[in-house]
Amino acid sequence: MSEAGKRVIFHELLTPEDALNKIFSTVKIEPVGVEIVKIEDSYGRVLASDIYSRIDVPPFDRSTMDGFAVRAEDTFGADELNPIKLRVVGNIETGAEGLPRINPGETAEIATGAPLPPGANAVVMVEYTKRVGDELLVYRSVTPGENVMSAGSDVMMGELVLRKCTVIREREVGLLAAVGLREVEVFRRPRVAIISTGNELVSPGRTLSPGKIYDINTYTISHAVRSMGAEPVIMGIVRDDINEMRNTITKALSVSDLVLLSGGTSAGLADLTYRVLDEIGPPGIIIHGLKVKPGKPTVVAVSRDGKLVVGLPGYPSSALMIFNIIVKPILAKMLCTSVDETRIRARLAIRAEGARGRRALYPVGLVDTGHGIVAYPLPAESGAISTLAYADGYIVIPETVEYLDSGDEVEVALFTHQYMPSNLYIIGSHDIGLDLLIPMLPGFVRARVINVGSMGGLYAVKRGETDVAGLHLVDEETGQYNIPYMVKYDVRNAVLVRGYMREQGLIVPRGNPKNVNSIEDLLKGDVKIVNRNKGAGTRFLLDIKLKDVASRMGVKFEDLVKRINGYYYEVKTHTAVAAAVAQGKADAGVGIRAAAAMYGLDFIPLGWESYDFAIPIDRLDKDSVKAFLNLLRSPEFKERLEKLPGYKVPGDIGSIIWRANT
Amino acid sequence: MSEAGKRVIFHELLTPEDALNKIFSTVKIEPVGVEIVKIEDSYGRVLASDIYSRIDVPPFDRSTMDGFAVRAEDTFGADELNPIKLRVVGNIETGAEGLPRINPGETAEIATGAPLPPGANAVVMVEYTKRVGDELLVYRSVTPGENVMSAGSDVMMGELVLRKCTVIREREVGLLAAVGLREVEVFRRPRVAIISTGNELVSPGRTLSPGKIYDINTYTISHAVRSMGAEPVIMGIVRDDINEMRNTITKALSVSDLVLLSGGTSAGLADLTYRVLDEIGPPGIIIHGLKVKPGKPTVVAVSRDGKLVVGLPGYPSSALMIFNIIVKPILAKMLCTSVDETRIRARLAIRAEGARGRRALYPVGLVDTGHGIVAYPLPAESGAISTLAYADGYIVIPETVEYLDSGDEVEVALFTHQYMPSNLYIIGSHDIGLDLLIPMLPGFVRARVINVGSMGGLYAVKRGETDVAGLHLVDEETGQYNIPYMVKYDVRNAVLVRGYMREQGLIVPRGNPKNVNSIEDLLKGDVKIVNRNKGAGTRFLLDIKLKDVASRMGVKFEDLVKRINGYYYEVKTHTAVAAAVAQGKADAGVGIRAAAAMYGLDFIPLGWESYDFAIPIDRLDKDSVKAFLNLLRSPEFKERLEKLPGYKVPGDIGSIIWRANT
Repeated sequence: MSEAGKRVIFHELLTPEDALNKIFSTVKIEPVGVEIVKIEDSYGRVLASDIYSRIDVPPFDRSTMDGFAVRAEDTFGADELNPIKLRVVGNIETGAEGLPRINPGETAEIATGAPLPPGANAVVMVEYTKRVGDELLVYRSVTPGENVMSAGSDVMMGELVLRKCTVIREREVGLLAAVGLREVEVFRRPRVAIISTGNELVSPGRTLSPGKIYDINTYTISHAVRSMGAEPVIMGIVRDDINEMRNTITKALSVSDLVLLSGGTSAGLADLTYRVLDEIGPPGIIIHGLKVKPGKPTVVAVSRDGKLVVGLPGYPSSALMIFNIIVKPILAKMLCTSVDETRIRARLAIRAEGARGRRALYPVGLVDTGHGIVAYPLPAESGAISTLAYADGYIVIPETVEYLDSGDEVEVALFTHQYMPSNLYIIGSHDIGLDLLIPMLPGFVRARVINVGSMGGLYAVKRGETDVAGLHLVDEETGQYNIPYMVKYDVRNAVLVRGYMREQGLIVPRGNPKNVNSIEDLLKGDVKIVNRNKGAGTRFLLDIKLKDVASRMGVKFEDLVKRINGYYYEVKTHTAVAAAVAQGKADAGVGIRAAAAMYGLDFIPLGWESYDFAIPIDRLDKDSVKAFLNLLRSPEFKERLEKLPGYKVPGDIGSIIWRANT
Repeated sequence: MSEAGKRVIFHELLTPEDALNKIFSTVKIEPVGVEIVKIEDSYGRVLASDIYSRIDVPPFDRSTMDGFAVRAEDTFGADELNPIKLRVVGNIETGAEGLPRINPGETAEIATGAPLPPGANAVVMVEYTKRVGDELLVYRSVTPGENVMSAGSDVMMGELVLRKCTVIREREVGLLAAVGLREVEVFRRPRVAIISTGNELVSPGRTLSPGKIYDINTYTISHAVRSMGAEPVIMGIVRDDINEMRNTITKALSVSDLVLLSGGTSAGLADLTYRVLDEIGPPGIIIHGLKVKPGKPTVVAVSRDGKLVVGLPGYPSSALMIFNIIVKPILAKMLCTSVDETRIRARLAIRAEGARGRRALYPVGLVDTGHGIVAYPLPAESGAISTLAYADGYIVIPETVEYLDSGDEVEVALFTHQYMPSNLYIIGSHDIGLDLLIPMLPGFVRARVINVGSMGGLYAVKRGETDVAGLHLVDEETGQYNIPYMVKYDVRNAVLVRGYMREQGLIVPRGNPKNVNSIEDLLKGDVKIVNRNKGAGTRFLLDIKLKDVASRMGVKFEDLVKRINGYYYEVKTHTAVAAAVAQGKADAGVGIRAAAAMYGLDFIPLGWESYDFAIPIDRLDKDSVKAFLNLLRSPEFKERLEKLPGYKVPGDIGSIIWRANT
């Protein structure tokens, strides 16, 4: 086999545990150094040494009340009827120095937090005293130590206050300050060099030439590195060129403590990466792939001077999952912390297949149904960035498990600590009115909107997968909106709530250069249209209008649409239709007036439609759904919605207009 | 009433909800501005605008497999026995430009991720082909679109990709990169000025003069501000001086978006704060205290130009709790995020009292017992920083609830997201060997050590509150260690595990200037000792030795100890004894040799003692306890322990040496 044609052979696939053991037994992974920081700059840093207190806290016997410092024995026997008389010899404020000595029969006024004067051993609260000039009447006795916090009772000089390897946050910095430290020794943040590989990659911000896509992994991995408290060093994109690869990896090794590569899906690039990674040794490559799906292309190498290079899979969500299971434990050792991945229990929404002898990782999206959290497995290996958008974390299916079934309990490792499951799912037809409504929802509502068209929304409601679905589906026979579909599709578990009216029409470039004024004009040979996805209400509307035209012309609908240039060019949202027209990718499309207005395009009205909301009955008492409905019915929302071009608000907005007879 | 004597009267105490409503209806709290950042610098920032895609993702029809681009119709009918022959007209790598056109009967080799050439509509995987020169045999038919990800199928041009107010982390930055954005508009981080007030305060790093304590709140609040993604501006300490207060608040208002004050426990300082806060208006002060314990001193004022000043309570844990309930919602509005406080369910360890008509907040420490998480309420209003050290979060007792009982389920609001409950509690006698062992535990063990002395540890075991207790308790009659105490205190639920031997003795300054060579020498008038806390094994040892001396001298023990200068000067750890001697606060103390060595002090041996571990039986199968015992028995630990001065390792270290007869 020639050098050029050589394919990488994945032998010795390791489990993640074996891979980590091999890494840790080959290289000593430990903190990469220490530095001194001011405590105010220590947020999130990790202590590099044990902290012993050099002082007592409090450093002196401290009054915990406003009152009078006394010798307790002087007050014995005092009560309401038999006050004891003492002579006031001073007044001690917090922070006072030069304290008076309290002799028998004497007292001094004292503030909360002030130091107890010599001679005194207790404080009488001001409520139980009466002062007349220099004379104090004490109406209650105190015991020695009463209302006094004694020196060192909180932290003793010499006590271990914080351990090495503690992460410094609000509480820890309080302890450092309390024992008087202004500077603290922390571990240096490991520098992590990040390289993306692939001839097809272009850096975001640059122009895409044909066949190219934007580099994503540099940025997702960089943020993942930051989330661990390490410091990313972006090395850029390396193409399929041995010298470029060699130079970049050499440079990365010299400026960082750990090198991460990603991409290289093509066999040629993988070959080349392997060659360069073996050159940096001995030992060179120590791991040739993981027994994990996805994760087979994972490669780990060690340089001559003991630095690690980890090659991650190319697809963004795969790279993030392998980062979590392989790179996080390495960075945790470099920072002397632990990987405290947050996990959430959920039920699987649909069956997920195992990977026959390999461990399977699935990105999952989480939905808080109000009756527990449900996890939707997403396709990990599609490379789709929408996977990244909807994945809250991932699940693991062990090597020995054939599949997990719908309803099975799973543990979801979250991608970020800060995650909270969305509690209002809006799946269905895209609408600009909804785009307006979402940000007006109260703070506790965490909405997630997924645009799948009206039919997709209808199915999601029927399966109980969404809280709300926006629909605008016109019945071919009656011209009635939405209700006929609830009946026809037998949606027994939901109600239909009145939404609002939207003006649909043809969206054409400003000035309407192709002179498109009716549905018939879409048949003109020089007009290319942009269509909506199947299941979209707007697609239904166009098809109904085209069926009219077909019957008038006496041709079959199927034959008619074949004559329309772009009928099969489908996009998912109104704004995407408008964008396609605005950018000259189409001469016309059907959509709502507001989308045309957004892009400054011309609009030829075709009529008004009803955009309503289907809501599963068991969600009507969910707080987020109540908040949604309240907002829908509110004057503020109505007022703002009516300002949108092509929107009309009916009087009964937000009322239930249909309920199944069950 | 004179000006100086005026006391602040707390009228109109508000609930936190009413307080926030009043704040939000008085001032418009909103993001403080926007700025452009590079996406690589966007970690944790908040999007200031909706992000629509300006491109299709993928931007072209993309092969998802290594194989051959074909016209699907050319392959119809192909199978293993009847391969179809095509002519190879090119080779398309990822990132390729200038694609060949595929005419009927033609094909081109294509790599994963490469653009589909014009004419082709599907990809046959390489596995189902055989190439001979320019001829390709295809053994399987494909349908149109097979192994192709079509342009825009992931994200459509014009689609809403991310909403305004989204926090940018790993996944979000991936979406920004995917649609080609290198820069993004985010909300500016609000600047939050922090002022500590109090005559007794000194900045950490400076020398404490008498009566002074270190300023803690500046640093805890600063880190809390950072945890919200805002930027702290430290203004320093203000004393009880109206001009200083006025100048600092004026300056703080001019450099920040929000001002936080804390401290001012004394009535004089509170008066002064009130005066200055009313001057900054109208409206000036709008909230005069919260109906929350602690939180009564909370004050909120609004300046002439609509900036907020929030005065927090003085005690660090109280200030942090009020920060959570009042300041976090304000900062969340300034950042257009929500307060996503992490909560954990736990059972209350002991009864916690309500605050009769006020809402009560209690800091709690959390213990993962292995059978659920238990919350220990801590005294909030003591001002102790040890409260801060042990508080993982806080619980809320509603106004109407008299008390919560031990065992009641509570919801704990955590101080930090990153919290994981400790899973190995070691409560008992302080030991330097343990200090050595803890960092050697495997990564999954999150140990928490609380030094309360041997007797405290024994009780904690008996009550099931700890996993492990280190004990060294000598029986007065037999001289035997630990076992007699397990019997005497009837600890039926635990075993005793053999630990190691420690050499106890007198710790004296280097050179032993006071010539202390025996217990009797502690009676010399010029010798001041430092003692251990009651319940400490070392205290027992000293008392036993002193009882010997007393009986030999024919005096009562109680009378003897009154003659010892410093007998009641108690510290909690061996290192604290050594520190007190090292710093000249005492001339001698009893402790272990290792502590003397740590501080370079002289040591006069008194004998060897057994330091063993009591472990509740139901914890023996807990993973963290198993790991503890494995480490205790390991050669690595033995080897390192024997290097400590004054430690001896018995052969049966780690074995169970006593078990109750139940």
